[in-house]
This record gives sequence, structure tokens and C-alpha cells, in this order.
Amino acid sequence: MKLATVAIDGRTTWGIVEGETFFDVGVVLKARYADLKAAIGAALAGVADAKASATTVPTSKVTWLPVIPNPDKILCVGLNYETHRKETGRAEVEHPTIFSRYANSQTGHLQPIVRPRVSTHLDFEGELAVIIGKAGRYISRADAMNHVVGYSCYNDGSIRDFQRHTHQFTPGKNFPDTGAFGPWMMTPDELGPLDELKLQTRLNGQVMQEARIKQMIFDIPRQIEYCSTFTRLEPGDVIVSGTPGGVGSRREPPLWMKPGDVVEIEVERLGVLRNAITDEA
Amino acid sequence: MKLATVAIDGRTTWGIVEGETFFDVGVVLKARYADLKAAIGAALAGVADAKASATTVPTSKVTWLPVIPNPDKILCVGLNYETHRKETGRAEVEHPTIFSRYANSQTGHLQPIVRPRVSTHLDFEGELAVIIGKAGRYISRADAMNHVVGYSCYNDGSIRDFQRHTHQFTPGKNFPDTGAFGPWMMTPDELGPLDELKLQTRLNGQVMQEARIKQMIFDIPRQIEYCSTFTRLEPGDVIVSGTPGGVGSRREPPLWMKPGDVVEIEVERLGVLRNAITDEA
Repeated sequence: MKLATVAIDGRTTWGIVEGETFFDVGVVLKARYADLKAAIGAALAGVADAKASATTVPTSKVTWLPVIPNPDKILCVGLNYETHRKETGRAEVEHPTIFSRYANSQTGHLQPIVRPRVSTHLDFEGELAVIIGKAGRYISRADAMNHVVGYSCYNDGSIRDFQRHTHQFTPGKNFPDTGAFGPWMMTPDELGPLDELKLQTRLNGQVMQEARIKQMIFDIPRQIEYCSTFTRLEPGDVIVSGTPGGVGSRREPPLWMKPGDVVEIEVERLGVLRNAITDEA
Repeated sequence: MKLATVAIDGRTTWGIVEGETFFDVGVVLKARYADLKAAIGAALAGVADAKASATTVPTSKVTWLPVIPNPDKILCVGLNYETHRKETGRAEVEHPTIFSRYANSQTGHLQPIVRPRVSTHLDFEGELAVIIGKAGRYISRADAMNHVVGYSCYNDGSIRDFQRHTHQFTPGKNFPDTGAFGPWMMTPDELGPLDELKLQTRLNGQVMQEARIKQMIFDIPRQIEYCSTFTRLEPGDVIVSGTPGGVGSRREPPLWMKPGDVVEIEVERLGVLRNAITDEA
């Protein structure tokens, strides 16, 4: 099943995506669930059944919003592919590197990624997002995948000069409309095994980053185990699982995204997240 | 005016504190405001007037909760007093060091700070918390103080080994029940000028950290200016403005808080935030 949060004529809702059709399940279940996060918190009970009574809208008519616009937590894993760790010159570490995004830094599929007026150092980071379905603390590796409700594409768009103002990444990772999340989440039963799936970032059609999910340094069970050691994971929390080598800032000369560019993050079988760059109004 | 979020017989509410009396304004204004954050979002309109019709409870009968239990963002400023920067051996930087806490890591006055089962390296950090009243982006230094609705004491309790697993602080700053916030927020008109106010941390009555607010490296207007450059500040957002030298982890030998210890953060004229340490159940 593919689930998305969208706006239709200015009204925010959520529902199921099949091919070119959006099923407005949010309206059918509005008495039960305020939003997709609430439905996830109830293990998506009743969601598949609600499709039959949902009105439909062509996906070409919806405005895609971040899959979860309001997660309690967005946990980002840094330096989680060897090719990226090496290009940054960082040492190997025993634990995942975790920084965080605020929910208001996100944007949806086909919405602009905004280059702020204070920087031209806008970079892409194609990633697989892992969406938590079941709350938990001290989750074991063995049990971790039972806490996942779905996967999505994520562009952890970064303002590199702000990221490097100090040793903490927060400022460079939180500019409004830089974290693209979508188009939808896909449930694990539909996505199938992750290991061989290819993650690819394309800028104006040219491949910039490419890896298979199995090339992560810290795999998804380890990420869930580690994050749930220091925080209680909640339904709708998002773990953005890291980016492969090839980021713009480590190229010679550095490559920055600029207005008019189109950046795509594709995870094989899952989908393509596409955003154009615009300058801040 | 002093405002707090509390529980009374298991019911969460918020209101005004005067001396030993809590005025349950939350009940009076429940049709207008869901919580203190919502009242802040409306510039506290009607709050002072509601006191006259509020029922009262002795403060000895309330359970103190984090002043804002549900901020959109908690922005923490690292290394913001010269004495602390020097003890950590960090270089001087041109910009504030910003990391973040999730709301679910917080606890209230007189509630336990919890030492997790995975670490004994529990440390204190006494700080002044700045609570944002008015939303804004690209706020100038000159206008910054107009965006502040109040101040509070904060103990940015840290699990040092997790903080140092990698170069990103997130894991060590987000364990549940480690970020103490309270007892109340005080509005700027009541607190008066900040510069000469003394910030002090005491562990079992012994002074561990002490500084005056004017000794911050980056003052509050600069913090607001900087943070609002990379994110839109919202009502109820909290900026935790940094800790002076004297943290336990930089002592010889290191001093870790342990069950039975009592830690107090006092900001002169503002109040005393007191928490006992307990082991995780």
C-alpha cells in the first residue's frame, strides 16, 4: 500500500495512491484519525477497507505534501555510506551519527526546494526514509523491523556553509523547504526486500549519487536499536537513513543547486521524489 | 507574571503562579486555548484578566510539568560561556553552536531526572531558557527582544558518553526525563534587566556552576537573530541559552550525578528549578 498526505483545492487530507489515482481515505476516516500520523498510530486499522468508499482524484490534481508533515521527531543519520564518509574525511565511528530536523523544514514532492537568500551553498542528499509505526524504547535489532510502517524517498537538502559554522549540523539542516519527503510512503509488504534496492540522486537528469541499500554502514535495525536507546520512538517518527557519496559540496569544484535545477531522488520500486529549486521570495 | 503548566489530581492545566498559590487559568480559558503554548500564540490575551475567576490550588499540591511540554522546537546553544568553552577545549567560533532536543526529553520541577540504565555519565548544565512569544524569520538583533514572552530555568541534563559517540550531540541530549524546565516562566516585565542576573547550579547544595547572564558569548538577541535565519521561530519555541563552566564531566575526576542527588538551577529573581536523580525503573 502507498499512502500520502496531499492538499486538494487547498484542503489537506491523506489517502491511498494507486497508479494515477488518489483515494481520499482521510475524509472517510476523519472521525477516527486527524491525519496520517494518527492512522499510523492505530496500525492503519481500517485504512485499506476505507478505500472502497473513498472519492478519487487524479494524482495530477493533488498538491503533494510531506508524507508526514508533523512528525514528533525526524532523526537523521549522517555519514552512513562508506563512499560519503570517505569524501568527507571523517573517521570511522562505532555508533551512528545522529542529528535532527524540525518538521517545519520539510516540503513535498513537486514542491519547490528553496534556496535561502543568505546562502548559495544548497546541496542535495538522496536518502531512504524509514517511518516508525509502533512506539518503543530499547528496541532490539531482532524486533526492529516490526516497528517500521513504511519507507519513502527523502532529500536531506543542506545549506553547507551554515552546516559548517560550528561542529553541530543543526543550522544547515533546518532551513524551511529544504527537506523533501515523498511522494508517498510504501508499506514493507509492498516494497519487499531492501538490500538490493538502488538509491539514486539525479540533478537535471545526471546521476550524482548511487548506492544500494545494503551498502549502509549501520543498517536499519541498528539505526532503530540505537535511536530507541536514547529516545522513545513514536508512530510517525522518521529516520532519514543517510546519503551515499557524490554530494555537491565534495566535488571539485563544488556543485551547488541553483534556481531552475531539478533534483530527483529515486529508490527502486518505491518511487521518484522530484523537486525544482527556486530562490526564496 | 509567572506562568506554569501543571497537573492537578492527574489533570493537566496551566495558569498563573503567585507566591504559594496556583491560579487555574487553563480551565477558565479552555474554550480559547488548548494549552499554555496556544495562549502564548495569542500574546497571552485575556490571561491576566482570567485570574479573577480562576480557582486556586496551593503550589504544594500541584505536579509541575515542563513549562511548555510540547514546543515545536527546542534550540540549544552549546559552548556559550567562555568558562565552559575553555574547559571543553573547543576553539572560538563566529556563530552560536546549535543542537536540538526533542520535546519528549523534558521533565518538570520536582520531578525526577532519570539516569538511564545504559549509562552512569549523567551530567548537569544549568541554563536560562528563553521562550519565544511571537513568530518570526530573519529577526533583527534590534527587534529580537520583542519576540520573547518569558524566561525560565533549564537543566540541559546530558548523557556524556552518548553525547561523544560521534561529533553530533543529539543522542546525549535527548534521553527521556533529562531536560528539566521550570518551575515557571516569568514575563520580561517582571524579570527586569537580565545582564546582572546570576545563574547558578548546585548539586546537593554545593555550587557547581555560576555566571552572570551578561557573560554569555552570544547574547540573547544574537541567538534569536541567528536561529531565525535558518528556521522560522514559533510561539512556544524554546532557546536554551548555554551553560557556564563547571560541568561534572570536565572535573578531575569527573563528577557524575547519581540516584539520591539533588540538583538545583537558580536564576536570580526568576526562581529555583529542583530535581532529584533516580535510576530508570
